[in-house]
This record gives sequence, C-alpha cells and structure tokens, in this order.
Amino acid sequence: MDQLNAPLWEALQQHRSHSKGNFHVPGHKAGQVFDHAAYPCFSELLSLDLTEIGQLDDLHAPTGVIYEAQQLAAEVFAADQTRFLVGGTTSGILASILSTCQPGDKILVSRHCHQSVFHGCWLAGATVIPVAYGLDPQSGLELPTSPEVVKYLLELYSDAKAVVLTSPTYFGVVQYIEQLAEIAHCHGIPLIVDEAHGAHFGFHHELPSRALAQGADIAIQSTHKLLPAMTMSSMLHIKEGLVDVANVDRYLKAIQSSSPSYPLMASLDLARRYMATEGKAQLAKTLEQIAVFRQRLQSISALRELHVKAEMDPYKMTLVSEYYTGYELAERLEEAGIYIELADVEKLLFVFSLGTTQTELDYLWTTLYQCHKSGRAQNKPKLMRPPELRAGEPLPYAECRNDQRLLVPLSQAIGQRSADHLMAYPPGMPLILMGETIQQEIVDYLLLLAHSGGSVRGFVQQDDGSYHVYIFKS
Amino acid sequence: MDQLNAPLWEALQQHRSHSKGNFHVPGHKAGQVFDHAAYPCFSELLSLDLTEIGQLDDLHAPTGVIYEAQQLAAEVFAADQTRFLVGGTTSGILASILSTCQPGDKILVSRHCHQSVFHGCWLAGATVIPVAYGLDPQSGLELPTSPEVVKYLLELYSDAKAVVLTSPTYFGVVQYIEQLAEIAHCHGIPLIVDEAHGAHFGFHHELPSRALAQGADIAIQSTHKLLPAMTMSSMLHIKEGLVDVANVDRYLKAIQSSSPSYPLMASLDLARRYMATEGKAQLAKTLEQIAVFRQRLQSISALRELHVKAEMDPYKMTLVSEYYTGYELAERLEEAGIYIELADVEKLLFVFSLGTTQTELDYLWTTLYQCHKSGRAQNKPKLMRPPELRAGEPLPYAECRNDQRLLVPLSQAIGQRSADHLMAYPPGMPLILMGETIQQEIVDYLLLLAHSGGSVRGFVQQDDGSYHVYIFKS
Repeated sequence: MDQLNAPLWEALQQHRSHSKGNFHVPGHKAGQVFDHAAYPCFSELLSLDLTEIGQLDDLHAPTGVIYEAQQLAAEVFAADQTRFLVGGTTSGILASILSTCQPGDKILVSRHCHQSVFHGCWLAGATVIPVAYGLDPQSGLELPTSPEVVKYLLELYSDAKAVVLTSPTYFGVVQYIEQLAEIAHCHGIPLIVDEAHGAHFGFHHELPSRALAQGADIAIQSTHKLLPAMTMSSMLHIKEGLVDVANVDRYLKAIQSSSPSYPLMASLDLARRYMATEGKAQLAKTLEQIAVFRQRLQSISALRELHVKAEMDPYKMTLVSEYYTGYELAERLEEAGIYIELADVEKLLFVFSLGTTQTELDYLWTTLYQCHKSGRAQNKPKLMRPPELRAGEPLPYAECRNDQRLLVPLSQAIGQRSADHLMAYPPGMPLILMGETIQQEIVDYLLLLAHSGGSVRGFVQQDDGSYHVYIFKS
Repeated sequence: MDQLNAPLWEALQQHRSHSKGNFHVPGHKAGQVFDHAAYPCFSELLSLDLTEIGQLDDLHAPTGVIYEAQQLAAEVFAADQTRFLVGGTTSGILASILSTCQPGDKILVSRHCHQSVFHGCWLAGATVIPVAYGLDPQSGLELPTSPEVVKYLLELYSDAKAVVLTSPTYFGVVQYIEQLAEIAHCHGIPLIVDEAHGAHFGFHHELPSRALAQGADIAIQSTHKLLPAMTMSSMLHIKEGLVDVANVDRYLKAIQSSSPSYPLMASLDLARRYMATEGKAQLAKTLEQIAVFRQRLQSISALRELHVKAEMDPYKMTLVSEYYTGYELAERLEEAGIYIELADVEKLLFVFSLGTTQTELDYLWTTLYQCHKSGRAQNKPKLMRPPELRAGEPLPYAECRNDQRLLVPLSQAIGQRSADHLMAYPPGMPLILMGETIQQEIVDYLLLLAHSGGSVRGFVQQDDGSYHVYIFKS
C-alpha cells in the first residue's frame, strides 16, 4: 500500500473544492456561520468539518476512503484490522469489553486499569476479578502485573472471558504482555490491552514493542496522546482469532457518535501517514534530545527521577523534588508557563512526544534549576504512599443497581460497598472500585490528596466543604 | 449572566498565550508536530486542542470555565441544568436511558427514534415497548406519535420507567410534546426527547418551541446539526424533578471519552454565545430567505414539497420530483456541486441553517430548474412506500445474548428474530428492531432500497453480492 496517500484527508479537500451548495448538516455550513471573534481560529478546519455525503464514506459502515485509511493504518500498526475511534480510547475499551462479556460473565482486570475499563465491565454487567499489583519499594510506583498471579486467578476462575490490562501504565511502566498473552491463550481467552499511552511503541528500536506484536488480541491506542492526532482520536487494533470482530463493530456502532467528527478522523489518517514516513526520524531525534536532557537533570541534585525494575517508556518522566511537594513544584512551573501532565503530593509526571522541542527542554531545565538553586524550601509536608491494594473479591456488577445508591457522609461510608469508583484524577486508576468495601486507610489517603489540592473523583463535596460518597444500600 | 462572555473559549486563548513549555498530552503539542501538507489547515485549532491543565477545568467534574459555560448555556436554552456532550447526541441518549432503566425495566420508545435510542435500551438491557406511528396517506411521511396510543400503552405497561421520543423527526415533523409529557407525568415517569434536530427551536416566534418548554424532562440536542458548533458537539438539557441528575452524570462519565476535545467544547460555548447575541436576527434573515425560496420553487411544477398535518420545522425541506427518483436527482445535484442531507428512492431531504446563504439558494433554484426544464426523464421506477410498522410486542433486550447470534442468508432469516437493527441509513430509524421478527414485506422494501443505491444497515454483503443478516438462534 502506498503510505504516502492519505485517502480521507484527500477526499475532504476534494469535497471542499467541489462543493457549491451545502444543504446538509452541520449547521455552520463549512464555516459560513460562526462566532465572529473565534472565526479566524476555527475557519480552516470548519471547511472540513463535514458529514457522510459525496465520497466521504461512513465510519460505521466504511467501504470507501475511511475503509482505505483504516487499511493503511492496519499495515503501519501491524494489525489484522484497525478501527478509527472518535470517542477516544474509552469507546474502544467499552466496545471490546461489551463484545466479550455478558451479564454475569467473569473478567480479569488489572487494578492498573483506567476507570474506563471498569466502566466497560459495569455497562456489561460483568463480574470483575481485580488483579492486584505490587508497589516498588524504592519509588512507590506501581509494578507490572505478575504473570504468576494472573495464572493463579485464571485457574481459580477458569470460566473468565478475557484478561484486561493497561500497558504502559500512566507512569510508563510496560507490562509483561508476552507472558500474559500466553497464559490467556492457554485458557482460550483474549488479552485486551488498553495501550492508550503506547501508540508510539514499535516505531523505533529504543522503544518497547507493541502489545499486538507480543500476542495481545486487541490493543486500543490513544493516537492523540503521543502521536500527532487531535484529542479524542484513537485506534483499535485487532489480531484475528479469538476476537468476534463483527460483535466489536456492533458495539462500536452503539457506543460512538452517529455523527463522527471528520477533522478527528482525518487527523488519524494524517498521523498514520506521518508515522509511516517521518515518524522514525523524528523519534530518533527526540529520543536523543530527551536522553541528553535526562543527563543534564542529574546536575540538579534535589531532583530524582522515579524508576521501577521493568521496561519503561522514555517519553514519560516522573520526578520527585527534595524541596517541594508535587503540587508546589507544579505551581512554580505553571507560573513560568510550563504545564505538565500530572502532579500529586509527592511527584510530577512529564510527557514528552515527537513534538517536544529543544527550546522547551532547555527552558524546562533552566526553570527546574532556578526552582532548586536557592536552598531547601520550608515545610514540605510528610509524604504518604498510596496504600497497597488487595486482590479483592469478585465484584458482580450485574447486581449494582441504580436504585440501590445512597449518598452518605464519608464517616458513615466506611465498611460499606462503594457505588462509585473512588480515585485521584489524574491518573484515574480507581483505588476503591465500585462494589468494593470502603476502607478507612484508602479514604485517609484520598482525603490527604484532596486536602493538599488534588482532585478526587467520587467524593461529592457539600456546601460546608465536607465530603459525601455514594454507597449501595446493604 | 453576561452572555457576551465565552469563558471556555477565553480560557483556551489565555492558556495559549501563557504556555511556554508543553509536557502534557496531546502528542502534537499544540501543533508543534503534524503532517506537513495538512498543517496549514489544522494549525490554528491545534493550538487550542489541549487537555485538563491549568485553568481549563474538567468536563467530567466541572468547577471552573466549563461549569460556567454550561451555566450560560442552561440560561439560553431555558434548562435547569445543561451538560456539554463531546460524544454527540448519541452519548446523551445512552446516558439518559441507562440512568433510567435497569435490566428488565420497561421503556416506551417511539418507532420514530434513531437507532441510538434503541442502542441505549440494548445497553441497559431494558424491555422496549415500541410505539408505532402512522404514515401520512398523501406524503408517505411519518405522522407524529399519537398521544392516545402512548396513553393506552402506559396503562397496559404501568411499570414502564420512561417514554422516549424523537422530535422533530429527521424530516422535521414536531411531536405533540405537551400532551405526551402530561401523560408521562401522570404516571410519574420522565419524558426523554431526542431533540437532535431541534437545537434552533424556541429562538424565534416562527419556530416550534423547545421540548423542555413543553414539559419534557430531558432534551438532547445536536448543537452541531442546526447551530454553529463543530460536528459531534451536543448538549443535554435537564428539567429537574423526575431526573436523577447525579446518575445521568455517572453514565455520561462512563460513556464519553475521558479525553474530551476542547475545540468541540469551545464550539459549544461559542454557539451558545452566538445564539444569545446574533442568533435571532440571523434566524429572521434566513427564515425569510427560505420562505422566498419556497415560493419560487412553486414555479417548477414537477417538484413537490412533502408536508404532513402537524407542526414542521421550516429549516427542513423534503422534495419529490416527477422526473427523477430521489437518488437520480441527488446525483444530478452532486454533479453541480450541491450536496444534500439524504436521498431515497422517492425523495430528497434538504437541511437549511443559519449559515444558508442567498447565493446557495439561488444556485439551488437554478440547478433544480435546469434539471426539470427539459421534459420528463425516462424510466422513473415505480415508487414503493415504506410498509406500515406494527406496534409490536415488548422486546426484552436483556435476553439478547451475544453468543446466540447467527449469520444466515436473508432468505433463511424470514420469520426469525433479528439480532441487528435493520434500516435505511440515513435516516437511521430501524424498520426491524433487534429482537423483532423479520418480515418479508419489510425485507423487500429494504432490498429495493439497497438495489437502487441506498445504504441499508444490518445487511451483511457477501462476496457474491448477496446479503446475509444476523438472527438470534431460536
């Protein structure tokens, strides 16, 4: 296939040049009406913000340019089949799980997973078997899922329908996909990988290989997170064999908008072309710049990068400062116009990409240096590690009924079953899953986060500042 | 509230001017890396394609600029609460139904509804009570849902949890919302209105009033379809009382992307500002232009506009030609660069909006005139009306299991229960619902559509050109 083509992008341009009368949605009519002040910013893209007309094909039943664009993507990402997603990786995760599990079916889910995986299980009415992970004693970061634990749990729950993992994790830790795929396949079930943060994997020898190349059956990638596509544009890659592709498509049709955004889809077509042509060279260039930056960083002795003993994505960097809490340093950086992915009480997460520039890296180094040169900051609060999460009992989501929810003060919720996922956001990994017993220790940790400026999902703040949570009536 | 503000749009601009270092997603880093050829078209908007950093708030837990933007929208659209949707009206429909129905719960659904409503019922495992509609004998268009039928069905199924309607229909027919809301409320249940095509309602005295103003409890509007917002940007409006708002939010969080698109959200903020300021004047202007166009159209005697005896949206126009099938005339128009919303064997649907220009209307008139001035075209096939749909039996979607699906040739499917929605697309109203018995008469109609160039969803074309469909094993 000719990877220099971008069939969807080209069709949009051809349509634009041919159209002389617009009697279809959307209402802005290719930009003919729009807010005046914002028009200069939106106008170019509005002229391509079209719908399923002429030769523009149909995401939900593709036979033309979208079909071709997906074929080209499948080739580049080494998949048997690829689907463009306009509802983010979320939509691909939901469809993958819904097509695999029916109410009451068991599914093994790593606790590393983003809440969207648990949402998928909830919508499916599946019974979640949570797979715990350990914490690295030095860094406090999550360790990869243990293949031994998955093997043990699959023997215990031999009727499970799938194994779901997130790899890499938000902090860049890569899972042992190859071993885990082998274990799942021994049981005749698919391994579904939320590879949201790994769309760049496999394009350069210094990067981890792709989940699909290591045996995963479905990998869903946020093309927008590390590659040059618009936010909310993702891809679902399939290895045929254990996946009912028609059923995945059926759920994608149900979950995703019936008015998919053409600029988003075109940006996927263009990101694929970019990676097929210039991607490797740009990765090589930025990998080297980032390596040099890491080297330079060692001269700031109050800063430490966190690692675990596992493969890690070089485009993620987690720093801890001797002088500041994560929140404090993030605030100092924001004052200097530097925005990062995530801060918590302890650490800061930086995301690099193919778009990272040397100028930005230099400016970051200088700013970090300035923040740390003038001696130790006062009153750095005592840090608190996230509690170790237990493996937990099976969670039968089919029994979690809407009308059994009750909003109660946090103090009354301890020991009750949570009716929401409770978590720090970002990263969005639930510390207490819906259906799990609410433990004091984890609530204390989340309260610490909330009180020190973090965002906690699942806590409902009252007018007096106190927190309530939803529980299931017992 | 000051409707001249656009808080989300303004926050994005401020962020852009302040940011000097980008160490967060998305990977294009505000446009620093992108496909070269397409860059000029995307660049301006990429600089606003950001994520939940700095002062940009969080769609899934809004407390800042997104919260304010939603409040401003609630005021303009006269709702108690408004939610921005980035997953299209689809996501709002799914969340509304999921928050109302649990597996086995009954729900009344008008057969006018778009497939996304039935998808919502399927995901919820609800039992659908389909509400049939009549066809106008003259135009063949769907008549509004009869309040008497809904009243009768709610007495028969008194444990139903909600009534769902689409209003206006794709062809612009407005439902009797006021009476239907009263009937639903007598039973203590909410009326959910898919108002995808009615975001402009209520802004001008010549337009129908909004569903919410007439008593609906939830109305989901595709802001992008008639108003100037980007495709896939919609709003969900709530009237408090019968709606569990927290539960709607809970499902929206699960269904929608956890990486919502800021350009899409900003376009909602801007569309709201436009409607609060210039909207009414622009509606007045375009309403008059369209009225004059309709007048002029009468001079082409071979063209006829279809109407039904009910309130209709003036921004929709359905034409039938004496000389051409719908497909043929659409093809002639496309050759002239005129693109319309929909064509079927018989008719063509045109969508006007606030962005429709006099130049386009003139060009459309001239083209239609040219197409019809040279006498009668030959071989216009005999038209075929869609079959009347029966009210049908309750459809228990909780019993529709994935592993019971079977792909069979169409001829073997007659009399079996369909495992897909079968429909012409657009408009996307299922003629055979999932779970319904496949009737020869409707299959014949869909085959006629497919053979004359229409797109039929649910038919799976085989290599030899024949069609298969999925049925449930009996």
